[in-house]
Amino acid sequence: MGEAIVSDLLTEILIPVAAVIGIAFALVQWLFVSKVKVVPERQGVPSSNNNNGLDDYLLAEEEEGGNEHTVAVKCAEIQNAISEGATSFLFTEYQYVGIFMVAFAVLIFLFLGSVEGFSTREQPCTYSKDKSCKPALFNAIFSTVAFLLGAVTSVVSGFLGMKIATFANARTTLEARKGVGKAFITAFRSGAVMGFLLAANGLLVLYISINLFKLYYADDWEGLFEAITGYGLGGSSMALFGRVGGGIYTKAADVGADLVGKVERNIPEDDPRNPAVIADNVGDNVGDIAGMGSDLFGSYAESSCAALVVASISSFGVNHDFTGMCYPLLISSMGIIVCLITTLFATDFFEIKAVKEIEPALKRQLIISTALMTVGIAIVSWLALPSSFTIFNFGTQKEVKNWELFFCVAIGLWAGLVIGFVTEYYTSNAYSPVQDVADSCRTGAATNVIFGLALGYKSVIIPIFAIAVSIFVSFSLAAMYGIAVAALGMLSTIATGLAIDAYGPISDNAGGIAEMAGMSHKVRERTDALDAAGNTTAAIGKGFAIGSAALVSLALFGAFVSRAAISKVDVLTPKVFIGLIVGAMLPYWFSAMTMKSVGSAALKMVEEVRRQFNTIPGLLEGTTKPDYATCVKISTDASIKEMIPPGALVMLTPLIVGTFFGVETLSGVLAGSLVSGVQIAISASNTGGAWDNAKKYIEAGVSEHAKSLGPKGSDPHKAAVIGDTIGDPLKDTSGPSLNILIKLMAVESLVFAPFFATHGGLLFKIF
Amino acid sequence: MGEAIVSDLLTEILIPVAAVIGIAFALVQWLFVSKVKVVPERQGVPSSNNNNGLDDYLLAEEEEGGNEHTVAVKCAEIQNAISEGATSFLFTEYQYVGIFMVAFAVLIFLFLGSVEGFSTREQPCTYSKDKSCKPALFNAIFSTVAFLLGAVTSVVSGFLGMKIATFANARTTLEARKGVGKAFITAFRSGAVMGFLLAANGLLVLYISINLFKLYYADDWEGLFEAITGYGLGGSSMALFGRVGGGIYTKAADVGADLVGKVERNIPEDDPRNPAVIADNVGDNVGDIAGMGSDLFGSYAESSCAALVVASISSFGVNHDFTGMCYPLLISSMGIIVCLITTLFATDFFEIKAVKEIEPALKRQLIISTALMTVGIAIVSWLALPSSFTIFNFGTQKEVKNWELFFCVAIGLWAGLVIGFVTEYYTSNAYSPVQDVADSCRTGAATNVIFGLALGYKSVIIPIFAIAVSIFVSFSLAAMYGIAVAALGMLSTIATGLAIDAYGPISDNAGGIAEMAGMSHKVRERTDALDAAGNTTAAIGKGFAIGSAALVSLALFGAFVSRAAISKVDVLTPKVFIGLIVGAMLPYWFSAMTMKSVGSAALKMVEEVRRQFNTIPGLLEGTTKPDYATCVKISTDASIKEMIPPGALVMLTPLIVGTFFGVETLSGVLAGSLVSGVQIAISASNTGGAWDNAKKYIEAGVSEHAKSLGPKGSDPHKAAVIGDTIGDPLKDTSGPSLNILIKLMAVESLVFAPFFATHGGLLFKIF
Repeated sequence: MGEAIVSDLLTEILIPVAAVIGIAFALVQWLFVSKVKVVPERQGVPSSNNNNGLDDYLLAEEEEGGNEHTVAVKCAEIQNAISEGATSFLFTEYQYVGIFMVAFAVLIFLFLGSVEGFSTREQPCTYSKDKSCKPALFNAIFSTVAFLLGAVTSVVSGFLGMKIATFANARTTLEARKGVGKAFITAFRSGAVMGFLLAANGLLVLYISINLFKLYYADDWEGLFEAITGYGLGGSSMALFGRVGGGIYTKAADVGADLVGKVERNIPEDDPRNPAVIADNVGDNVGDIAGMGSDLFGSYAESSCAALVVASISSFGVNHDFTGMCYPLLISSMGIIVCLITTLFATDFFEIKAVKEIEPALKRQLIISTALMTVGIAIVSWLALPSSFTIFNFGTQKEVKNWELFFCVAIGLWAGLVIGFVTEYYTSNAYSPVQDVADSCRTGAATNVIFGLALGYKSVIIPIFAIAVSIFVSFSLAAMYGIAVAALGMLSTIATGLAIDAYGPISDNAGGIAEMAGMSHKVRERTDALDAAGNTTAAIGKGFAIGSAALVSLALFGAFVSRAAISKVDVLTPKVFIGLIVGAMLPYWFSAMTMKSVGSAALKMVEEVRRQFNTIPGLLEGTTKPDYATCVKISTDASIKEMIPPGALVMLTPLIVGTFFGVETLSGVLAGSLVSGVQIAISASNTGGAWDNAKKYIEAGVSEHAKSLGPKGSDPHKAAVIGDTIGDPLKDTSGPSLNILIKLMAVESLVFAPFFATHGGLLFKIF
Repeated sequence: MGEAIVSDLLTEILIPVAAVIGIAFALVQWLFVSKVKVVPERQGVPSSNNNNGLDDYLLAEEEEGGNEHTVAVKCAEIQNAISEGATSFLFTEYQYVGIFMVAFAVLIFLFLGSVEGFSTREQPCTYSKDKSCKPALFNAIFSTVAFLLGAVTSVVSGFLGMKIATFANARTTLEARKGVGKAFITAFRSGAVMGFLLAANGLLVLYISINLFKLYYADDWEGLFEAITGYGLGGSSMALFGRVGGGIYTKAADVGADLVGKVERNIPEDDPRNPAVIADNVGDNVGDIAGMGSDLFGSYAESSCAALVVASISSFGVNHDFTGMCYPLLISSMGIIVCLITTLFATDFFEIKAVKEIEPALKRQLIISTALMTVGIAIVSWLALPSSFTIFNFGTQKEVKNWELFFCVAIGLWAGLVIGFVTEYYTSNAYSPVQDVADSCRTGAATNVIFGLALGYKSVIIPIFAIAVSIFVSFSLAAMYGIAVAALGMLSTIATGLAIDAYGPISDNAGGIAEMAGMSHKVRERTDALDAAGNTTAAIGKGFAIGSAALVSLALFGAFVSRAAISKVDVLTPKVFIGLIVGAMLPYWFSAMTMKSVGSAALKMVEEVRRQFNTIPGLLEGTTKPDYATCVKISTDASIKEMIPPGALVMLTPLIVGTFFGVETLSGVLAGSLVSGVQIAISASNTGGAWDNAKKYIEAGVSEHAKSLGPKGSDPHKAAVIGDTIGDPLKDTSGPSLNILIKLMAVESLVFAPFFATHGGLLFKIF
């Protein structure tokens, strides 16, 4: 079997060092961003009456440009309002989520504790029956603790991301006065702060938890890593509410603002006269930033947990080879270092001078990080793995070589790149698919929608093949462990991925602030260019999130099946097949809920905005200020209320199916929701992205073709706006939430597997 | 085990007698319809210049009403034009499809013949190795013959349906002058002609084939019924082209006509000034009638074949119990008799006097036929089955009782009714879901689309549970045979189902003819009422088609797995899982193709219609006639050209996967496409139906709420028209075609199973 070159002690040192380097790098980037001064800093307005204070400034001066100081003051005020709005929403959200978190923690404890009737006696291990393992009651306690740790880390990740984004948006606007390059660097650095903080935090908390749990578990690694899976569950369940709640918030505001502002009143996007404009900008931060941060943290935590739990019953765990066990964490550590170098290419080695250089620069980030990481994976696989070892494979042990594991991780990484590029092809208006969609606007909104839906469906093909190939290769080489590390491979460059992903909403906000602060046309043009590139990178980010979610879910599914002691999931048994078809239906049920929620909330928003335009005299002329706070409240109330039913659907399904129908039907449900959900998620997010950029294509009017469709306000443009509006809930609410649906059901099943295996399938037991 | 009460001889007599009764009943109904005289019959215009002849009449007189004779002449001419257009399109389509049919027949012969190297020696049977069965070469020949028989029957079914529909449409219009009851009876009787002809024909051809094949096969029932499965493949592959080609034809014309006529020029639907109006009406007949006829015939043939092939290796086949073997055919025979009685309730026992009685009358048909059929199934199960027998269950024989089989068939039947009612709830504008969608038109097309998509997603939930319960019960009771007869149960009332389904497009056409012939407002109102009820029944018909397709595919899938000698389809093997995820993607790929095809063809149609309005002086004023023929040609060319890629995708996938990746991956593909496709099919068809009826709800303006959204031409109405247009390809092209995708891939896999089992999986064999 051989030994790993890196000693256990060195592993114990390397992982936290990498995490600390990541955090330090994030802080350095923050320092750079904070050098851009927004005057008069926060002391300007007492925090007790921000919103009202803001309103006075927001419309105080309308003349183009204004003097330097006034503009900066306005920017600061708007930034403040957005930040306060986002913070206040997140706190409200966390209150509700907190109650759920505690309740669910109790549930975990009760379910898992009951496996052995809350006995404190040691029990025979699940996989090595001759050995003795820690009591189920303590597994229940530690799983609950891990769940809470994951949940808190997820919340912190989302919250920090939002704070950074609202810290950076006005700074990006102000830098845009000096040129597009400066603005780009500011937005990108801020994205990097979030990316590195999140990646490093996730790694560090996980690492510390393992080490603390080990104090109790000692040599019982089976129990230790089974308890650790609670971390993944905690991370993902918070992400669910973050994505759904944030998604409903942002799109209710966005759709509402656009429907009245752009379509009915013919005023520009982000115009300060629109009462929903602040809610819209807050939404970008709570939905696209905080929600996405929690989501990707969840994916990261889950794939690590899936890999660890399988490793603990493979030769790494059986032989207590700590370095081998920590292979997933070492990959993530290497990822932080690789992303650090990659970031320097964007911030220091090259300089953006023109608008057209932005998109290539962002794409280069993906390519560089993937190429470097391939080398990184090879190094880690060579140093941290014995040349040969065995991996648990549904009851048997499969012999695997270190280079085979390298291939598993690398294929995940490269599949991510393929998905990224395909997403770019289908959602960037530089290529024919989006241009065709734009062209179909000539005949109106109907053909635009038909073409957009068809584009989304078509964009599924190559990503699915990429995922299928990764699954086949990594599955064949190293069973379920291979899939788990392939998912980790796809997420290994998460710091860079998040950086370019977060860059999008920051630029979007920067544009909004420029418009609201009444800055010059030139500044607005620059922020628009940043934003357009951001739309595509956001779609790429979603592609990564979905692709990795598919791999993660499959890995978790495999771990669940192993833990539930099922030897096969045979589609040709009625129990499994009904699970499969019902599971494939769940993403539709879930999407129906989230889309309807956005629709209803948007209707309320539209009524409120219309009411304000109709009843507040002078609003359209810009002489009176709108009532922003009511719109913020509508979005907040709607999202809090509406996130509960879809959340309940996802959280309760595995519990109900597992308890009443048993582990086989639950396996079917997991497989069905995975293979069906991934398709809807990809198509929804690409359709939405394409509509958005088709609209931007017509607005920008860069080519002859684009000019023939425009300008703003033309019939084709109006049709494009309708498509864009339809795409909003698809790409920012239901699509991305589906990732979490498939991951969360899988991780929840895994955590509750000991209970289901013992007490599950009540209905079949009775009849 | 016991003996069946009905002797083999009696079975041999009963089945053809029922089929002949069905055909006779259809002819009687035809006789009734033909009593409505359309003057001057066909001799009025020489068939050489119909289209030109028509044009002269079509716009000759515009005054409301006209005299009786002139109106009748116009109706006859328009009917003639539609009939000629439809016939000419179908002939063109059949030419292309004919070439494919011959080529594919050769392929079947070559693939299946090669299983034993074209040897003419007898071989050991697949399931009873000790016995001797007919040579594979002869199985290849008979499979090919069965394929051709199925294909021809399918084509004839579609063609006859179209002929009847185009025979009935003008007669319905003319009867509408006398009252809504008379018109209803005419349309419904015509639908019944189609329903009974199709059901009886399908049964008769299958029955004769079995008896003829038996002359060669004698006691080798394994080989006999394996060859008979070719019948199902033939039926379904023609249905594919019928649905896709017809679907593209009808929606290209419909979307094109609406986008320019209703949206841009503000002229009513079916206005004779619209150049695409004839193409639109032709489309109803080739898409909704001929395509659907072929589709349901395919489902019927496939579920019968699936049941027969499993029965042949169960105790029925092993003991050569002919009556038991023919249980599926006896169920269908009973279905014809039950539907005959049911039809009398609509045509003779009750009379429609008011508009509001139409929809209940049609719904009553469903309920009566289901209730009667339940008794019918009980009788057949009691008379034709031994009290106990065994059913093949993946290698073992499972003991089943006759009353258990009764439950299998009955649960399929009642699940169909549930699906029908749920579909009605979500697509009829009498209930809140469609009214909510209509209400969302207040805020424009975008919210209409968001709400409509959400409605479609939501409408999937109950049908999937209904399907899942049927699968679980019938699977548990009688393995794959149970599923096959459950599918047959759902289709046992096919004659009634088709009657109310075909009634829709006939009424639609009748309305079109009334408008074109310039008949009075009253007549148009009556045909509109018939049409609105038809929209809902069409959606119900689609629900049946999808539900039965899901069951049929699963039954075929089970038969395939048995024939390919796989003992399990374990999701946890990489080969199966990649099949599953890629299979789940195929419906998206397929929908992308068909929707894009409709979109592109519609764009061409729009350009042509615009061109005519812009270049032909006096067209909008009604003083010049449009060039209908060019629009017909655009639809024809587009549908012929565009049906090939999606057709190839469906037909080639099983061949490629089976040959290169083997039966396990193919099993995954079949399961994946089944569980994913059924969801998209249901949601697409219900979303489309809901949009259509939301528009009709606003137009009809019956309630206070509806009035507040209207009238025609208001902003909410315009938004509703956009939704309706988007829904067209969803509900009439991609949605219904997906049924065929899932069924066809399964039956094709079954037919080619002997080849795949012997030579398949090349890629894995090489590596």
